[in-house]
Amino acid sequence: MIQTTCSLRVRYADTDPMKYVYYGNYARYLEVGRVELFRSIGIPYNEIENNGIWLPVSDYHIKYLKPARYDDLLEITTTLKKLPEIRIEFEYEIYNPKKEILSKASTTLYFYDAINKKITRCPDFIMQSIIKNWKTN
Amino acid sequence: MIQTTCSLRVRYADTDPMKYVYYGNYARYLEVGRVELFRSIGIPYNEIENNGIWLPVSDYHIKYLKPARYDDLLEITTTLKKLPEIRIEFEYEIYNPKKEILSKASTTLYFYDAINKKITRCPDFIMQSIIKNWKTN
Amino acid sequence: MIQTTCSLRVRYADTDPMKYVYYGNYARYLEVGRVELFRSIGIPYNEIENNGIWLPVSDYHIKYLKPARYDDLLEITTTLKKLPEIRIEFEYEIYNPKKEILSKASTTLYFYDAINKKITRCPDFIMQSIIKNWKTN
Amino acid sequence: MIQTTCSLRVRYADTDPMKYVYYGNYARYLEVGRVELFRSIGIPYNEIENNGIWLPVSDYHIKYLKPARYDDLLEITTTLKKLPEIRIEFEYEIYNPKKEILSKASTTLYFYDAINKKITRCPDFIMQSIIKNWKTN
Repeated sequence: MIQTTCSLRVRYADTDPMKYVYYGNYARYLEVGRVELFRSIGIPYNEIENNGIWLPVSDYHIKYLKPARYDDLLEITTTLKKLPEIRIEFEYEIYNPKKEILSKASTTLYFYDAINKKITRCPDFIMQSIIKNWKTN
Repeated sequence: MIQTTCSLRVRYADTDPMKYVYYGNYARYLEVGRVELFRSIGIPYNEIENNGIWLPVSDYHIKYLKPARYDDLLEITTTLKKLPEIRIEFEYEIYNPKKEILSKASTTLYFYDAINKKITRCPDFIMQSIIKNWKTN
Repeated sequence: MIQTTCSLRVRYADTDPMKYVYYGNYARYLEVGRVELFRSIGIPYNEIENNGIWLPVSDYHIKYLKPARYDDLLEITTTLKKLPEIRIEFEYEIYNPKKEILSKASTTLYFYDAINKKITRCPDFIMQSIIKNWKTN
Repeated sequence: MIQTTCSLRVRYADTDPMKYVYYGNYARYLEVGRVELFRSIGIPYNEIENNGIWLPVSDYHIKYLKPARYDDLLEITTTLKKLPEIRIEFEYEIYNPKKEILSKASTTLYFYDAINKKITRCPDFIMQSIIKNWKTN
């Protein structure tokens, strides 16, 4: 598996009249989590798109256990548990500064060849970086 | 059950470099869907909050079947299939102008008494409106 | 000049802990205003981009006179007062349901030829539609 | 004057089909800038709201000189040039990693006593922190 952690601060723009992070804004946080996982294995997400590959999301599930609040410095743990094929699946946990878990989520994305306009397998340059960084525990 | 349909147009702000609606922005569309369902049974969402009741989301699941694109006039079908208790669950389908289904989603929200700061059952004024508008099919 | 009016409803996602529309979200509303002005003269914004022309914003100014609030059905008046050259300037007024003015804004956009990657004059197909719909008052 | 600098990375969610940061999303970045200026003088923004003071924006002006793009690590310089009275005015400059200036902006906010529901002067605890950190150049 590959696991990375990143942190980000909740902005006022992200919160709603309940003073909670609006439920739709967690998707942005998870995006930061998976982009940082890619960066940690040497692949800026830009490089994927520059190779003509898109990664649209096909499935997204999130459980909100406790609300994230304005100015919280959140910690996001992103985990890749299975080697990708035509799909790549990330799991996430979001923690507040007291290390309480706030949310658990998963996203499934698929590799899309934007030039030939068809679904494709995980490209070699991504697969090799994943395998090189894979940890068995 | 109670089912309502509403339509909304995709804004440029909602789209990403793939020219798709960003996966995190569908949550906003679903919010419009359930607010319009409440309005259709005579309850503006404001009235719920003015009664000291909040409705935070505890679970959200969405499958993206086809991308929604800039300027698409989307149709959102929102369905309440079970009578609420301490939770209320909505199901959604999003269609494009060609009547192709783009997404299927569900959200679970819970009733929260913001004055006494505790989870509560569906308040009477909501329950009565739901029962009055319930359709058996 | 050309002037159009459109209406839109404030979403929960747009509001902040003060229960006001977040100051950054008005830009989305103004986008709706100018897109609807273009549509009213027979030009869906998509058609502009499909012709290889982009319209990035170069200047944006907004005065917030009164707050817009959750569920308000806002009315946006968008006005084109000068014929475009390499720039096109829109002026906006946002009203609440009581016809009170909430905001006054202006945006300057420029025509950008995305194929040749350079600033360009207002394309003929846009200019002709503007002139055909121009009203002298 | 008081001047602080902070950096933030452009998210995919912030970008539009031109692969630029959507013009409406800069407001979120400026919010980060002024919140970090307050934090640098010992005032988390939360503390202002916990004291019953709101800071709504009354005027916002931004010039977009060059586009910010996906994954850019932006640097935001925020400057307070005048002591606040009932209003507080921030000026901002946004730079890309090559130190090119991308945007120049200003926001005017006013102090609002949310308990007594009226505009108020800059509260003492804020004014004292500002004066203590003021630099004459």
